[in-house]
Amino acid sequence: MTADSSTAGQALVVGVDFGTLSARAVVVRASDGAELGTGVGEYAHGSIERALPSTGQPLPPDWALQDPADWRACLGEAVRSALADAGADPARVVGIGTDFTACTVLPVLRDGTPLCEVPGLRERPHAWPKLWKHHAAQPQADRINDLAHARNEPWIGRYGGRISSEWQFAKALQLLEEDPETYERTERWIEAADWIIWQLCGAETRNACTAGYKGIFQDGNYPSEDYLKALNPAFADFAQTRLAGVPLSALGSRAGGLTAEGAALTGLPEGIAVAIGNVDAHVTAPAARAIASGQMLAIMGTSTCHVMNGDRLADVPGICGVVDGGIIAGKYGYEAGQSAVGDIFAWWTGLGVPESYLQDAAERGQSLHEYLSSLVEGQPVGAHGLIALDWMGGNRSILVDHHLSGVIAGLTLASTPEDVYLALLEATAFGTRVIIESFEAAGLPVTEFVVAGGLKRNRLLMRIYADVLRRPVSVASSDQAPAVGSAIHAAVAAGLHADVAAASAVMGSCEQAAYLPDPARADAYDELFAEYRTLHDYFSGRPEWGGNDVLHRLRDRRNEVTGP
Amino acid sequence: MTADSSTAGQALVVGVDFGTLSARAVVVRASDGAELGTGVGEYAHGSIERALPSTGQPLPPDWALQDPADWRACLGEAVRSALADAGADPARVVGIGTDFTACTVLPVLRDGTPLCEVPGLRERPHAWPKLWKHHAAQPQADRINDLAHARNEPWIGRYGGRISSEWQFAKALQLLEEDPETYERTERWIEAADWIIWQLCGAETRNACTAGYKGIFQDGNYPSEDYLKALNPAFADFAQTRLAGVPLSALGSRAGGLTAEGAALTGLPEGIAVAIGNVDAHVTAPAARAIASGQMLAIMGTSTCHVMNGDRLADVPGICGVVDGGIIAGKYGYEAGQSAVGDIFAWWTGLGVPESYLQDAAERGQSLHEYLSSLVEGQPVGAHGLIALDWMGGNRSILVDHHLSGVIAGLTLASTPEDVYLALLEATAFGTRVIIESFEAAGLPVTEFVVAGGLKRNRLLMRIYADVLRRPVSVASSDQAPAVGSAIHAAVAAGLHADVAAASAVMGSCEQAAYLPDPARADAYDELFAEYRTLHDYFSGRPEWGGNDVLHRLRDRRNEVTGP
Repeated sequence: MTADSSTAGQALVVGVDFGTLSARAVVVRASDGAELGTGVGEYAHGSIERALPSTGQPLPPDWALQDPADWRACLGEAVRSALADAGADPARVVGIGTDFTACTVLPVLRDGTPLCEVPGLRERPHAWPKLWKHHAAQPQADRINDLAHARNEPWIGRYGGRISSEWQFAKALQLLEEDPETYERTERWIEAADWIIWQLCGAETRNACTAGYKGIFQDGNYPSEDYLKALNPAFADFAQTRLAGVPLSALGSRAGGLTAEGAALTGLPEGIAVAIGNVDAHVTAPAARAIASGQMLAIMGTSTCHVMNGDRLADVPGICGVVDGGIIAGKYGYEAGQSAVGDIFAWWTGLGVPESYLQDAAERGQSLHEYLSSLVEGQPVGAHGLIALDWMGGNRSILVDHHLSGVIAGLTLASTPEDVYLALLEATAFGTRVIIESFEAAGLPVTEFVVAGGLKRNRLLMRIYADVLRRPVSVASSDQAPAVGSAIHAAVAAGLHADVAAASAVMGSCEQAAYLPDPARADAYDELFAEYRTLHDYFSGRPEWGGNDVLHRLRDRRNEVTGP
Repeated sequence: MTADSSTAGQALVVGVDFGTLSARAVVVRASDGAELGTGVGEYAHGSIERALPSTGQPLPPDWALQDPADWRACLGEAVRSALADAGADPARVVGIGTDFTACTVLPVLRDGTPLCEVPGLRERPHAWPKLWKHHAAQPQADRINDLAHARNEPWIGRYGGRISSEWQFAKALQLLEEDPETYERTERWIEAADWIIWQLCGAETRNACTAGYKGIFQDGNYPSEDYLKALNPAFADFAQTRLAGVPLSALGSRAGGLTAEGAALTGLPEGIAVAIGNVDAHVTAPAARAIASGQMLAIMGTSTCHVMNGDRLADVPGICGVVDGGIIAGKYGYEAGQSAVGDIFAWWTGLGVPESYLQDAAERGQSLHEYLSSLVEGQPVGAHGLIALDWMGGNRSILVDHHLSGVIAGLTLASTPEDVYLALLEATAFGTRVIIESFEAAGLPVTEFVVAGGLKRNRLLMRIYADVLRRPVSVASSDQAPAVGSAIHAAVAAGLHADVAAASAVMGSCEQAAYLPDPARADAYDELFAEYRTLHDYFSGRPEWGGNDVLHRLRDRRNEVTGP
């Protein structure tokens, strides 16, 4: 991209999206959201899952760490590349905002130094940041949930009844119980979303979003000392000493000014506004103009994250959480999710297709996904005779159960690879409909479905969602909506717009109702969805739904015979 | 093969197995069953499913015809080739026996001329032989069953409660109702198994096996005129005029002597013994020495057919049939089956595997089946976490329902092609166990499982069957056991052995207990089988088992939207 001379003198903002494997920066014009340039930095260590880089020692199963040095290095690289790509004068940049994966969390000293950078601690796996997909704290999560229900803790209903093993408390309790010495050295326990801001403005801040969704902060409080003591006596003061002590900041507010060190790292002017930290899914809502109550935004990629604002507080069974100001200040932000979506489609094609398919796709210049889609395009609803349950990666909402697994029913000797592929696309749409129906049953209407993320480009999938959900499907315009969302927050922090809603209205963009339901196909899908729901309830294993626990028994046996 | 000089002067017999696409002849020494030579003839028209050869007119869906000229031509070709292969002097051959697919049935004149060879009728599809897999008579079969149950016909229980659309009455009723003129010209309605004998000995005979299993001949009678009249008034005299009038002959008895025409066709001596007709599955039992009560013989290929002798008559729910003397004279012959077995494994590999698998298999010189088997060999039972229902081709026993379809449960993003492959192998073993348990619940113990057919060479599959069935698995020695079985019947018809049992003892062969159950794996499979049975009952749709009719609804919708 080259500089747009007409923008000379207009204020620019920078947004940086920290993903699982890379950081992506975008330079945006604050007046209208035009994206002027992009830059990417790939983490040198990626997701650390097999061996600790400092020693080479193998990590146990289900671990996933990251190196904070990668975040710092890629922050500088991505921002500098984006500025160069935009051909923009850095002096015109008036603010920076960031978003991060969550819950990615790390132990630090009081001055923000990661414990894994403290001499003598670098060899300890627990001193490193735990990436969102670190899944080794399930035993701790189970105890957290059992105790919360036993004590009727008021906050547990806000999380669909279940705290995830991915979140702050489970990961911290694992640290305490598996490496008490490192826990003793932990002065603060902080989300990477907030830690990266610390690197920019030189002060610890805490954002309302991660504190609420990942840190169990509800109605002005973290879980009580009494509760934490019952989990583990040494954990009693965890929230007060390692989390609290810094006021929570609303999204879009100013964390501080860019320090000299931050300026040196990024090439941006010292003193410009740094926005409070944010989360990749939630920050996307204003970028896609999906912040009104009833607009459900789905960020669809390998998995799907759903976020939606509501005007009132309700307990929705099976969602990930509801947080006051969790998406934008002044509204209740709801979050739900599907553990695997694009991952399921990739899994199926990765199992293999006939050789002739690969040749045909290559001849047509299509990806395998495009080719399979073209084969089933226009197939009457139900012509494949299949129903699948989209639980190959477990079920995040509304069953909150990662020991569930996938099912395909209706297979015949005539079933083709593309038939199953289509059934899997549909299964993820049915899974989304279950989530939407849970919201509506709790009194929160869902009027529009807005899609961001890589799968928004799959036109067949989008049509299926419109038909299955019986709702208009809108599509975020930007291919880097999270980074644009961060830039929107930077503009608000810099005082260029009154608030996030106002900034979203001029800087966000979306193709409204890009797909509309076809009434006949929607009717047909209603019937197939009824079958999906029947199998959903049966295989959920929930006694209240007449469930059969066969999937758990199969999983237990698998885990037993394959060993740890 | 070349002539064995030590056999000079010893009596030889010829067996001919008429399959779906070819006829296979074998020359066998009557004293010990040694196979001296083999010959094959491929039917010029194979299975006629798309267009009538005489006119090119398209056939409706689910039709499957054959050309009797192909049978005659291949009979001559296969026998002459086998004699040449054996280097045998035809003069030493003292008998010929045959077996055929069933129910393959045709309309003929009183002299045995097929209607499709009668001038003026060759253009009519209904004048041609209907192959066993002609499935277009389902509406007639449904009425046959409904009426039989409504009238409490005594014979319906002998067929597991359901007459197949493949059998003589359904196919004849379709002929009557769709082409009454051709029905009027039909003087006799005869199994190909008996028609081919007519070509050899010049006289119409009827064997007890097909009359019982396919012709509803029970306790000395065909279905009553009253019953047939209620089906269709014009059908009232069908059994008396088109089937009855010739006494039924026991298996192994002599149909007559080889005519001059038969001798000219085959190159065999005029006047030698011609054995009564037989069916491919049933004739295999003596060849595999599996004729004692409690020895279940499974002919395992694309599908599986189970035959077993019993000393007493019992109604076994869901089996194909029980016939007095249906396998050997003097015992009750039981038959059951699985619609798809090898077909399911071929379907799965046909969906595709990763390209690297094809390369690896080619490098190792393995078939894809061998390669996938090698990948899962030694995997602990249940390590894949999967359960499949083996209904991709419907369920022949014990549900007798071809509108069921397959299910795979327990899929995760880590499930591999070989995991599913193994689960499908296991699923067919579980399906067999359901059949065996149905026999045992009816008071018919199954003590040994004997395997013939192409799948007997799959060692992994055989081990799984031994473990799942908790029974020794024996393996028929001959790779052409049906043809050898026909030769055994020829030897009995020629008076070389007292009866089929005596001939089986010296001419049949089997590797006894080639596979024994591993107790630990069998215990583990007991638990997985319990899960299979749970899903079996649920997806059966049977209300008495808490079933859910989802598979039928999916099938109905598929058929509705894809049209006829």
